Amino acid sequence: MSESPVPHEPPIYRRIADGLRARILSGELRDGDRLPGENALMAEYAIARATARQALAVLINEGLAVPKRGSGVYVRLFKPIRRHGSRRLSREQWGQGRAIWDADTRGRPFTVDRVEVVLERAGEEVAGVLESGEVWVRRRRYSVDSRPVQLATSYFPAHLVEGSAITLADTGPGGVYARLGDLGVSPAHFTEEVRARMPSPREIALLDLPGGTPVIVIARTAYTSGGVPVELNEMVLDSAAYVLQYDFDA
Amino acid sequence: MSESPVPHEPPIYRRIADGLRARILSGELRDGDRLPGENALMAEYAIARATARQALAVLINEGLAVPKRGSGVYVRLFKPIRRHGSRRLSREQWGQGRAIWDADTRGRPFTVDRVEVVLERAGEEVAGVLESGEVWVRRRRYSVDSRPVQLATSYFPAHLVEGSAITLADTGPGGVYARLGDLGVSPAHFTEEVRARMPSPREIALLDLPGGTPVIVIARTAYTSGGVPVELNEMVLDSAAYVLQYDFDA
Repeated sequence: MSESPVPHEPPIYRRIADGLRARILSGELRDGDRLPGENALMAEYAIARATARQALAVLINEGLAVPKRGSGVYVRLFKPIRRHGSRRLSREQWGQGRAIWDADTRGRPFTVDRVEVVLERAGEEVAGVLESGEVWVRRRRYSVDSRPVQLATSYFPAHLVEGSAITLADTGPGGVYARLGDLGVSPAHFTEEVRARMPSPREIALLDLPGGTPVIVIARTAYTSGGVPVELNEMVLDSAAYVLQYDFDA
Repeated sequence: MSESPVPHEPPIYRRIADGLRARILSGELRDGDRLPGENALMAEYAIARATARQALAVLINEGLAVPKRGSGVYVRLFKPIRRHGSRRLSREQWGQGRAIWDADTRGRPFTVDRVEVVLERAGEEVAGVLESGEVWVRRRRYSVDSRPVQLATSYFPAHLVEGSAITLADTGPGGVYARLGDLGVSPAHFTEEVRARMPSPREIALLDLPGGTPVIVIARTAYTSGGVPVELNEMVLDSAAYVLQYDFDA
């Protein structure tokens, strides 16, 4: 038998970050409050500047704080949206005329703006997935608590949805999935592909992203029970606003 | 009836990016080759510098190219690892002594280095999830094609795994999940939480990340069929190296 190892303490920058996080989550520090600066942390904990910076970086990376150039680091209290991959797309959800989005925000007010619905020639990738050269495209932006959090672009095979409410700004109760059901091509299976990258200038503008904030990109394809692809939805999410959750069995 | 809308062409920067991507994927442009610069694209397509930059940014964001400061943009041909959330954790996979990782790389050589196995006092978050104040921690780095792609830190309740091979560097055939099975606490359900953020200096160093590359962070909790949490695995992935895939039904 070897000797019992001694448990390690977490490093100092992490303990400082834990303390600041607790003060934010308890409500002692509030949205828009300035966090203690590097100099204050250096004096309080007798640490190097790099360590103080590391502690603040933890909170910035977690989306709980945002740096403002030349001014300091401020609390950004935005409870992340928990986006539950499978539960939100259950038939129960859209089958009864509810918006899928309700499953994410749990009652927090959300708005859709910048809705654009156009017929387009499909790019190579979209054409490949949907097996269709022409597509109806629905572009929109979602905001929660008046903050833009997601851009979504849905593509539908034109021959499939032509003349339906999917080609209109207002798709009616249950949204596009209920309308696909009306057309006899209800989504039954979904594949989500998830990536992360830095945003484009257009995405920075539309999502009002502070510097150093990546986006999560989700490409979701919806298939009928017969395996026919009926929608490709490319979503671009402010990474500081989201946690994606997926549950599955062994 | 309104007039039939005219399909839009994709914007010019996207068509340029499509062309460059096709040349990369066909093998005409190869790993390490320099892409046409902004000036060359401006001359060839009679476009503004901002447009040329946008075209190159598409490929950089897709992980197909990497900028080198003051030198240009180079092909970075690394086939992204398709990490399939549910299939890779099937009992079939680890139940027969195979490493979970095999399901991702499909035969591409991978290596594990920097394995560290230590007993630690759990931080607040880990203690909360695992309901345990002391944890055995397994830290390791994974590389594919000699490129580091992932850091993984697994936490196990100390009282559960003490004395098992989970506390050793080499856990034996089937890895930690097979060993949890030996202990009578096989994982049956998994929850994955996915976020994206910018990397810490330590992560940049360990994953050899070029500038402007975010990381994907996955926190996966494994539960027994009785709902007892037996592992928390925090994974940090080079976002340019990965596509996460999740499949589910409506």
